[in-house]
Amino acid sequence: MPVIDLNADLGEGFGAWRMGDDAALLHIVSSANVACGFHAGDPDIMAQCFARAKQAGVSVGAHVSFPDLAGFGRRSIPMSPQEIERAVAYQLGAAQALAHYAGHKITFVKAHGALANLAESDAQIADAVARAIVAVDPSLTQLVIALSEQTCAAERAGLSAAHEIFADRAYTQEGLLAPRSQKEAVIQDVELVVERVLKMLTTGAVLAQGGALLLTPIDSICVHGDTPHAVEMATRLRAAIESAGWDIRAFAPPAD
Amino acid sequence: MPVIDLNADLGEGFGAWRMGDDAALLHIVSSANVACGFHAGDPDIMAQCFARAKQAGVSVGAHVSFPDLAGFGRRSIPMSPQEIERAVAYQLGAAQALAHYAGHKITFVKAHGALANLAESDAQIADAVARAIVAVDPSLTQLVIALSEQTCAAERAGLSAAHEIFADRAYTQEGLLAPRSQKEAVIQDVELVVERVLKMLTTGAVLAQGGALLLTPIDSICVHGDTPHAVEMATRLRAAIESAGWDIRAFAPPAD
Amino acid sequence: MPVIDLNADLGEGFGAWRMGDDAALLHIVSSANVACGFHAGDPDIMAQCFARAKQAGVSVGAHVSFPDLAGFGRRSIPMSPQEIERAVAYQLGAAQALAHYAGHKITFVKAHGALANLAESDAQIADAVARAIVAVDPSLTQLVIALSEQTCAAERAGLSAAHEIFADRAYTQEGLLAPRSQKEAVIQDVELVVERVLKMLTTGAVLAQGGALLLTPIDSICVHGDTPHAVEMATRLRAAIESAGWDIRAFAPPAD
Amino acid sequence: MPVIDLNADLGEGFGAWRMGDDAALLHIVSSANVACGFHAGDPDIMAQCFARAKQAGVSVGAHVSFPDLAGFGRRSIPMSPQEIERAVAYQLGAAQALAHYAGHKITFVKAHGALANLAESDAQIADAVARAIVAVDPSLTQLVIALSEQTCAAERAGLSAAHEIFADRAYTQEGLLAPRSQKEAVIQDVELVVERVLKMLTTGAVLAQGGALLLTPIDSICVHGDTPHAVEMATRLRAAIESAGWDIRAFAPPAD
Repeated sequence: MPVIDLNADLGEGFGAWRMGDDAALLHIVSSANVACGFHAGDPDIMAQCFARAKQAGVSVGAHVSFPDLAGFGRRSIPMSPQEIERAVAYQLGAAQALAHYAGHKITFVKAHGALANLAESDAQIADAVARAIVAVDPSLTQLVIALSEQTCAAERAGLSAAHEIFADRAYTQEGLLAPRSQKEAVIQDVELVVERVLKMLTTGAVLAQGGALLLTPIDSICVHGDTPHAVEMATRLRAAIESAGWDIRAFAPPAD
Repeated sequence: MPVIDLNADLGEGFGAWRMGDDAALLHIVSSANVACGFHAGDPDIMAQCFARAKQAGVSVGAHVSFPDLAGFGRRSIPMSPQEIERAVAYQLGAAQALAHYAGHKITFVKAHGALANLAESDAQIADAVARAIVAVDPSLTQLVIALSEQTCAAERAGLSAAHEIFADRAYTQEGLLAPRSQKEAVIQDVELVVERVLKMLTTGAVLAQGGALLLTPIDSICVHGDTPHAVEMATRLRAAIESAGWDIRAFAPPAD
Repeated sequence: MPVIDLNADLGEGFGAWRMGDDAALLHIVSSANVACGFHAGDPDIMAQCFARAKQAGVSVGAHVSFPDLAGFGRRSIPMSPQEIERAVAYQLGAAQALAHYAGHKITFVKAHGALANLAESDAQIADAVARAIVAVDPSLTQLVIALSEQTCAAERAGLSAAHEIFADRAYTQEGLLAPRSQKEAVIQDVELVVERVLKMLTTGAVLAQGGALLLTPIDSICVHGDTPHAVEMATRLRAAIESAGWDIRAFAPPAD
Repeated sequence: MPVIDLNADLGEGFGAWRMGDDAALLHIVSSANVACGFHAGDPDIMAQCFARAKQAGVSVGAHVSFPDLAGFGRRSIPMSPQEIERAVAYQLGAAQALAHYAGHKITFVKAHGALANLAESDAQIADAVARAIVAVDPSLTQLVIALSEQTCAAERAGLSAAHEIFADRAYTQEGLLAPRSQKEAVIQDVELVVERVLKMLTTGAVLAQGGALLLTPIDSICVHGDTPHAVEMATRLRAAIESAGWDIRAFAPPAD
């Protein structure tokens, strides 16, 4: 029985502020990307999130970002690769400690927002992220965007990589995420999303604009929970994937 | 030959802002309390500070604080013991990761500013700090204020404790730090500071207002570097202690 | 025809973060308390909020707070009365400029959260808030909690005051807001809220626990929009007040 | 007797953090650019700064910036022109209120750091700054970099402009500030600085690399106080300018 992971962002709040529906997502995904305090997340939310994920049997990763609470990590803050490297190490360490505090364990790292976008095509920034992970703990897996510079950087750094595709996003002919400024960049239709994901899983390839199939390992599918519609789509997608014979399982489960 | 540690706060800057004279202190102390981003410190400054301390043979600890950059951690931010516990775990993890990144290793934890003051006499807050340390890594040492609730809390938590006295501070009859609102709370006279410290080291006791000697283990002496006068005082104190036959040595050196 | 004002908090977001339902509230209230960047609010949200309020014919006031984004202004940040005074002046000036920028005009000031709670009973803090308003613009009205120290402070400062009651809050025998730790502090039952408000409007008095009626001017009723239930309650309350013969009108409309 | 203004940045601290030597500069300059809380400055420091400037007879302006405390406003934070416009209005309003509170009056606005650099050559950003000033108070003067887009934008907006040159900076052949990455961008030699400034004042022109003199109105000279050397240079420059027959006087004194 083939296996696939579903991942989503969790713990996206800080202090009195909240986004997303953590409770719903914990029943859908096998891996949770937990915000580490730079774009969202605070020690309390992180600790609660790790404890709930542990109880739900969901693996947890550090979702590292530019320091940008106001912009939710979606803005490119001017930082050198070395500054990025250290910012990633800082967030990862904080997440490791709070996961341990909550009885869980960080097993992977994923870049968020503008940092992920830059690292998709900028090798220097992709290397900075990968180097930070290796420096803190080389046994961690990096959850990388399939076909991107992140993938190459993880390999250069000697890191284990899990390749993710996005359930509701269109891909350019080069296999990059279509920019959100494009009208068709985000796919709203649930059945179309299901159809595309199953095709990508079956073929082991990203479905690019124009119809080309770009071969890649696929270890995880990224889903969202920031709207009721998103939760519904993730639920439907999980059911469809399971019906089609896949087992939903974390790519990096904590060792017992 | 008896041994004693000298500790000081390092890495007290963030972004473009700076306090203190790290370069001078690294030649004086055997242990450095490194700010973790909540009252001061950012990933770059922390990484540089850990690298320099490693090179200087100085042990490093996480200097944990209330989240209060503007107030430099000197204000009591309203937080529950549980929120404090998680904030300490977060900072400690971040410091561990960046120390590791820089080739060094966190071997102790010290509370800063208002958090230290509250934990001096409030058992609940002292316990929160100690519990956080245990949860993240029970092999760490806590650098505690001698004769305070911090000492009791470390013991309750099963933590190894190093007891510190303050070179330039007066103590109440109960052995607490005299509040800064008192005229005599901070001792400016270098020779008086030297004389008092040597008396405390020799007797193994805190010298309280009124002259009483309150017996306590003494593992470390806290000095400052935030003014040229403070650096001069620390330099003079180190020389006097060494002349009197003590060996300046970290209480928690990293294992090789 | 008697007149009464309805006020609610608006613009409670910052950057990518949002609370409350501004669009719904703008159809219900006659005055909006707009967050100024310290507990919520940023220049964009403030400008949009002022422009929408202008279009809806809703008066706007500066909703001033402790600097505490994470805690949403609900925590007492340790600050001297002078520091509070200057923080209020800063926020008020920023709000005046952005209201002017958006074609509207700040006509009143209201304290938010922990600052409002402290100023309810602490004369020094109440005076600090009132002094700041007078220093910036003595022609502004202060929206004060009826029967509180805020009322006395506004009078001492020579400020015009508008007295507000809370639609869904119980009052102690002394006429203070019952602390939220009390089970009965917040009234959830819509019809009970309507009944109480109409009784207070009719008698010109606050209805205290135990049944006493404490006479006070009543110029405004505070309603909420942070949940669908709250919006529904505010809508129902407005309809009931209008049916009972009151005209809903801002206590401090901008001069044309 | 010809007149010229000397301007410098003041109030560059926040909370417990400090840069620069305000006390020294207040005896040297005729105009102070006061940080408004976005790159530096807090309500207390601003109020104190305005009160001291009033006492010293120094005019005050709002020194507006990107929101970037950590980067001291020297980083280009990704913001649209409209977001910049509103951020400038916010800061200006806050400064106006606190100046008024302290018995002084904002008479001009100057862009700081990365915002100033962008507005030197980007017309859209220059227009955003100028529009914000006009929207808040069209009677204010904008202190603009001579020969830059800031100058054109102030004119387009109908704002009164004061043109500044930089005492210690080299200019490209186009009359722009030489980028700091150039070795010769910042001139350290005091006598050379004095000679250049006097030449620029005498000829009414910016002295460009290669020796060309680019004609421009010159209303103010920007000096610094962030190092002892900078204070010494500013002192020497003022003496030389006065000896050469210029009267040091604010370009925008508050009306009595």
